[in-house]
Amino acid sequence: MSFMLKEIHEQPEVIKKMVAAEADKVGALAAEIKARGVEYVVMAARGTSDHAAIYGKYLIEVKNSLPVGLAASSVYTLYSGKLKMDRALVIGVSQSGQATDVAEYLQRSKEAGALTAAITNVDGSTLTKIADHSILCHAGPEKGVAATKTYTSTLAALNLLSATLAGDPKAKDRLLECAEAVKKVLTIEDFCKKQAERYRFMQGGFVLSRGYNYATALEAGLKLMETNYVGMRAYSSADFQHGPIAAVEGQPCLLFAAPGKAFQNMLDMAKLLKERNADVAVVSSEDAAFENAHVQFKLEATIDEELSPIAYIVPAQLLAYYLAVTRGLDPDSPRGLNKVTLTR
Amino acid sequence: MSFMLKEIHEQPEVIKKMVAAEADKVGALAAEIKARGVEYVVMAARGTSDHAAIYGKYLIEVKNSLPVGLAASSVYTLYSGKLKMDRALVIGVSQSGQATDVAEYLQRSKEAGALTAAITNVDGSTLTKIADHSILCHAGPEKGVAATKTYTSTLAALNLLSATLAGDPKAKDRLLECAEAVKKVLTIEDFCKKQAERYRFMQGGFVLSRGYNYATALEAGLKLMETNYVGMRAYSSADFQHGPIAAVEGQPCLLFAAPGKAFQNMLDMAKLLKERNADVAVVSSEDAAFENAHVQFKLEATIDEELSPIAYIVPAQLLAYYLAVTRGLDPDSPRGLNKVTLTR
Repeated sequence: MSFMLKEIHEQPEVIKKMVAAEADKVGALAAEIKARGVEYVVMAARGTSDHAAIYGKYLIEVKNSLPVGLAASSVYTLYSGKLKMDRALVIGVSQSGQATDVAEYLQRSKEAGALTAAITNVDGSTLTKIADHSILCHAGPEKGVAATKTYTSTLAALNLLSATLAGDPKAKDRLLECAEAVKKVLTIEDFCKKQAERYRFMQGGFVLSRGYNYATALEAGLKLMETNYVGMRAYSSADFQHGPIAAVEGQPCLLFAAPGKAFQNMLDMAKLLKERNADVAVVSSEDAAFENAHVQFKLEATIDEELSPIAYIVPAQLLAYYLAVTRGLDPDSPRGLNKVTLTR
Repeated sequence: MSFMLKEIHEQPEVIKKMVAAEADKVGALAAEIKARGVEYVVMAARGTSDHAAIYGKYLIEVKNSLPVGLAASSVYTLYSGKLKMDRALVIGVSQSGQATDVAEYLQRSKEAGALTAAITNVDGSTLTKIADHSILCHAGPEKGVAATKTYTSTLAALNLLSATLAGDPKAKDRLLECAEAVKKVLTIEDFCKKQAERYRFMQGGFVLSRGYNYATALEAGLKLMETNYVGMRAYSSADFQHGPIAAVEGQPCLLFAAPGKAFQNMLDMAKLLKERNADVAVVSSEDAAFENAHVQFKLEATIDEELSPIAYIVPAQLLAYYLAVTRGLDPDSPRGLNKVTLTR
């Protein structure tokens, strides 16, 4: 079995392991955030980890009322900036813990007085050595170049942090339930395998969602792109209407429509896209989401919107995997990519 | 003459007008930022205005040491979040001043105690009614649906704010010099017109830069997309290496290589892309930038890196315009787009 497929299936167990092992450390971080009077948060990450950071932004802003920015690491690495950071929490996210620019951002932020935290899969890595607090993914070795289980574990860690900081007594329970939901969602595997044939000749398309699942759209686009070399463009459905929608004409569009506040928005977008003759695929647990869908990725579990990105990415991971297999590509080692990317 | 082409040519005069008319208002805003002890900045914007906001982020972080976040407006509009904003400056950017989600973000931030500012082309618009301070673009009516002169005027306004806040006595002079540089850069028009034939059958490609000109890459991608319906994907060259680079194979890539801190980075990227058999076009004032370029967009003016985005976008605007004309499309009214986009 390929590493990627194996790792996709490990996700529910990884989340459970992470929750059990890290809850106390997350509690300690939450306590220090309060004690230090943190006013805002900066998240530093690249690639898949950056998509997790975007989920973290929505979550921490909505649930914890702290404004969250995403780091432009070149402010430090190229422009030698000196940011005021004494009221900031800076969270560096990197599955390998080795991303050089993320490490430098964390180091400089610490020197500037920020409280620092790392979320990574590798204990003892550069990031854990710099950060005041480290939360580990407990994903075991991830051998597929396309990150899957470290991504969902990072989402779960961010959820645990946000819920703990908000004083939610059910923070752990809800994540354990979510891990069970991911198990149910994995039963969509056969459907994804069949759909891979349908998308065999797809050269590009759009991936859309909104709010919490904007991260899912970005990550789904990247998974398809890095394993299949297709030209996917991911947008928040709101930004999409400010220009890019002009380019849609018959192309495949993949929408994530979890029940919740962004749901109606995605229904409207599906309708609009169908009117524009796009090929519309929708990922949802809700039948109402499929009215304008040519392809229905029906999930076998209904999940709270704020946790849904942990489950909704799964069909996209499976589709990326099976599409690569169908096309005779090796999803475990995309051309020209390494597991650890070093950029400054 | 089409509106778009006319408006591209108006850009130097618009910048001069904006500087003359708004410098005092910018000074008043800068004074209040200092008086209020602002700790961080949030920019709220969509589409082209969001690209200007990204330029503002780099500028304010590097030059003013204030961390800058980009607003996720759905935190307010969908999720009814309540952000802590008493130490924040929130800048809403919208050429029409009517963007509903930007207006709501500004209003809620004001209620939460933030200092608020608007950058817009329309005096008396919703944004100017909400904001404590308004800075106007002075672009006159912009009739082309693809924004050009309001974009560069917004960049100039952000530069004026950042430089004024940093106490730079030459803030105005440098922008007036930059306006002259834009005039010189406009002499590239004939070259862009000729290149439009070369790109006639381009269906998609990549647009890349780093640091200050990351905004230029995003905006160039959007201009090409909304006027020509081509699948352009824009990345910071650092993020690009974390996955998307796997998809490059013979496609057109457009790089912005202004002299400065990000220059070497772009040279390395051009080399890497040529090795991967991509078709490489480079926009630069420096001959050294063209070593691995198939197409050389040579600019007739050398500009400080921090001001360069105001000039470097010009060849992309001209290419987008002439490519549309070559293809028999109407660059003034892209299909399915309106000048004002209302999203919540």
